[in-house]
Amino acid sequence: MISYRSLRVALLGGGSVGAQVARALLEDGDELSQRVGARLELVGIAVRDVDAPRSVDLPRELFTTDVDRLILGADVVVELMGGIEPARTHVLKALASGADVVTGNKALLATHGPELFAAAEQVGAQLYYEAAVGGAIPIIRPLRESLAGDRIVRILGIVNGTTNYILDRMDTEGGALEDVLADAQRLGLAEADPTADVDGYDAAQKAAILASLAFHTDVPVEAVHREGMRTVTAAQIASAARSGHVVKLLAICERLTDDDGRDGVSVRVYPAMVSRTHPLAAVHGANNAVFVEAEAAGSLMFYGAGAGGVETSSAVLGDLVSLARRHVVGGPGLAESKHADLPVLDIGQVTTRYAVTLEVKDEPGVLAGIAGVFAQHGVSVETLQQSVVTTSSAGLATAVLVIGTHAARESALAATVADLEAHRVVVGVASVLRVEGA
Amino acid sequence: MISYRSLRVALLGGGSVGAQVARALLEDGDELSQRVGARLELVGIAVRDVDAPRSVDLPRELFTTDVDRLILGADVVVELMGGIEPARTHVLKALASGADVVTGNKALLATHGPELFAAAEQVGAQLYYEAAVGGAIPIIRPLRESLAGDRIVRILGIVNGTTNYILDRMDTEGGALEDVLADAQRLGLAEADPTADVDGYDAAQKAAILASLAFHTDVPVEAVHREGMRTVTAAQIASAARSGHVVKLLAICERLTDDDGRDGVSVRVYPAMVSRTHPLAAVHGANNAVFVEAEAAGSLMFYGAGAGGVETSSAVLGDLVSLARRHVVGGPGLAESKHADLPVLDIGQVTTRYAVTLEVKDEPGVLAGIAGVFAQHGVSVETLQQSVVTTSSAGLATAVLVIGTHAARESALAATVADLEAHRVVVGVASVLRVEGA
Repeated sequence: MISYRSLRVALLGGGSVGAQVARALLEDGDELSQRVGARLELVGIAVRDVDAPRSVDLPRELFTTDVDRLILGADVVVELMGGIEPARTHVLKALASGADVVTGNKALLATHGPELFAAAEQVGAQLYYEAAVGGAIPIIRPLRESLAGDRIVRILGIVNGTTNYILDRMDTEGGALEDVLADAQRLGLAEADPTADVDGYDAAQKAAILASLAFHTDVPVEAVHREGMRTVTAAQIASAARSGHVVKLLAICERLTDDDGRDGVSVRVYPAMVSRTHPLAAVHGANNAVFVEAEAAGSLMFYGAGAGGVETSSAVLGDLVSLARRHVVGGPGLAESKHADLPVLDIGQVTTRYAVTLEVKDEPGVLAGIAGVFAQHGVSVETLQQSVVTTSSAGLATAVLVIGTHAARESALAATVADLEAHRVVVGVASVLRVEGA
Repeated sequence: MISYRSLRVALLGGGSVGAQVARALLEDGDELSQRVGARLELVGIAVRDVDAPRSVDLPRELFTTDVDRLILGADVVVELMGGIEPARTHVLKALASGADVVTGNKALLATHGPELFAAAEQVGAQLYYEAAVGGAIPIIRPLRESLAGDRIVRILGIVNGTTNYILDRMDTEGGALEDVLADAQRLGLAEADPTADVDGYDAAQKAAILASLAFHTDVPVEAVHREGMRTVTAAQIASAARSGHVVKLLAICERLTDDDGRDGVSVRVYPAMVSRTHPLAAVHGANNAVFVEAEAAGSLMFYGAGAGGVETSSAVLGDLVSLARRHVVGGPGLAESKHADLPVLDIGQVTTRYAVTLEVKDEPGVLAGIAGVFAQHGVSVETLQQSVVTTSSAGLATAVLVIGTHAARESALAATVADLEAHRVVVGVASVLRVEGA
């Protein structure tokens, strides 16, 4: 049974976040116990190598490789190992033993969330995961509790600090992606293998978690349409800037109605243009921000540091204190609600605005021809800008056209782009960027 | 005893927020009960005049003037009357009867918070108040729960939409306060009597609530240093713009050490300059934002619509759903923690940066004289800018000096300003603005 005077906390993982959580439990124990009404007792830290160097000086006797034994002797298990296995096995074991679980494992939640929540509900245990999305920024709890009486319409998230840092620097300095990425790696802001960040995998996992929560529906990460920002060029960013926009890698979750009138959700990650007047454009460096549109609350934004050992430990500790308080005053707390069970619609069903950049032959009738292709697919043009005409050494005069559309169906825009690529007067399609947050 | 199948909700007040909460409970009852696990049953709305016109069409039979009877027949009482009495009496009656209370009443909390929290704790009832600060923006719950494992260092809040709207328009249009205020009143964004907003009373109440929560200390509204924005001129705003700043009415709560080395808190409201690169500068119109600096989490910002019937109802419903869920699964939830019990330091102890604008005689030795006054009081000058010299018809040549200081103690700066006003070469002190968020 739970003792009301002290809660035994087991840590799985001694990495950057785990070490900071351990430090806080050891150094701030008195303050925390005053807030909780009971002591949070760190009973052990399970790691692969008890002798490995740690970012924080911690008592060696706390470290162990015997995960199973540690779990069985804990009231709360904090999983900060990352990765899917063996984290999943350990979390299920912890829940089955009746322990509550606090995790920051976005990969695990994005792929096995439903299984874990079901396991928790079965035994009446709590599963908290504020640290999984947005680092230090409270976003899970606001969505789960504060907005629980509202209806979420749309979420636009900058949820990956590495790519926001890169895009922000490309915007302020005008540099090429490869150069800024190399610099970011040198500064420790990007991994040696940056695939998870640059190709949008990290953002897609977080998008799946946010969408599941916001729409009371299971959204597995496989259902998330994912495009990374590896193809974003300095030219695209400069062009966006000329029209008063920045380019951000966005995680977008929204309610939609499909062509048959059924309610569904769209969950996607891609680089998109955002107006400089939008609050998301003011998110610089490696910061994150989640912009939420709710029916009653209107537009809200949650902003802060999206990552970092110390920062993320704040989210873990918040979950721990919440858990502990409930143990003190009694009662198991919250279960997940996935009752809405909405279908996840594919990208073709998405409606948004687009900025299409074409290189075209400079001859009479070109604009009419181009406009005709858009009209043919029902895509309404809002702005059309032609920039300076250049003439090649062979005498071919070309111009660059930037077309901004009104809201259009993705499938219609894709068909438009295909026809443009094949059009006689089009030399090439230089860029297609979605424009979000309007 | 609480029935686990339905929770009886009583509304006190049928104004803009109350009407929206009632509408949501009636129209979205099914959705809400799926999220909660039990039905939220609106058992009545207590008002002064059952026949008064309402912003929403609601069944007449729900309205009553018999507050006491309504309270006794409820599991949760939602107090949206505003004002201190009779709201305080009704809330205490509700808590004494064992009902939980959800309120949006900042005036009541800022003046009688401790009494109400003690009453709630005594009977094991819950008192939630997300709607009291920041309208729809989740800020109370993040401070109370998500950051409960962290230590708050400072809060900078734009918590009054009316004054932010006015200052924002003055910044973008260059207009005078009186004109923009009159326009805001015409648009319903400012009251006929704008004192509560313009003179900072509303912001001061919210500052007291935020500080109490952030520092686990009772901060009564009387302890809040309050300056309104009535004295902000178009000239000050233009001058701020020239140095890359905007002027915002800020609610500031921070931990300080006083001159004797004791820990304390400073809570104050005043118009201040904020760099345009600061996230708070991107808060436009009538929006609110609360910028939180925490030891582990670093800088966070919560942004959204600070007011409005529909928007604020979102915060009330979030509290209701949270409350109801706990009733369903058992357990009374959270108590306030005010164990830190820190002293509230007066404004003289505050350290911040200042922008001082002087009109001075244009003669040799003036700069040295001015600099000397600052040095005398230990206030370090960071920037000094002299603008164009003008000569009056009488032949007196004067110049405008804008002095930016490094961080300085308020008491030292006040003494400096007093000496400057009396100084032979100073024609007048045109402006003293604090510079925050650096």
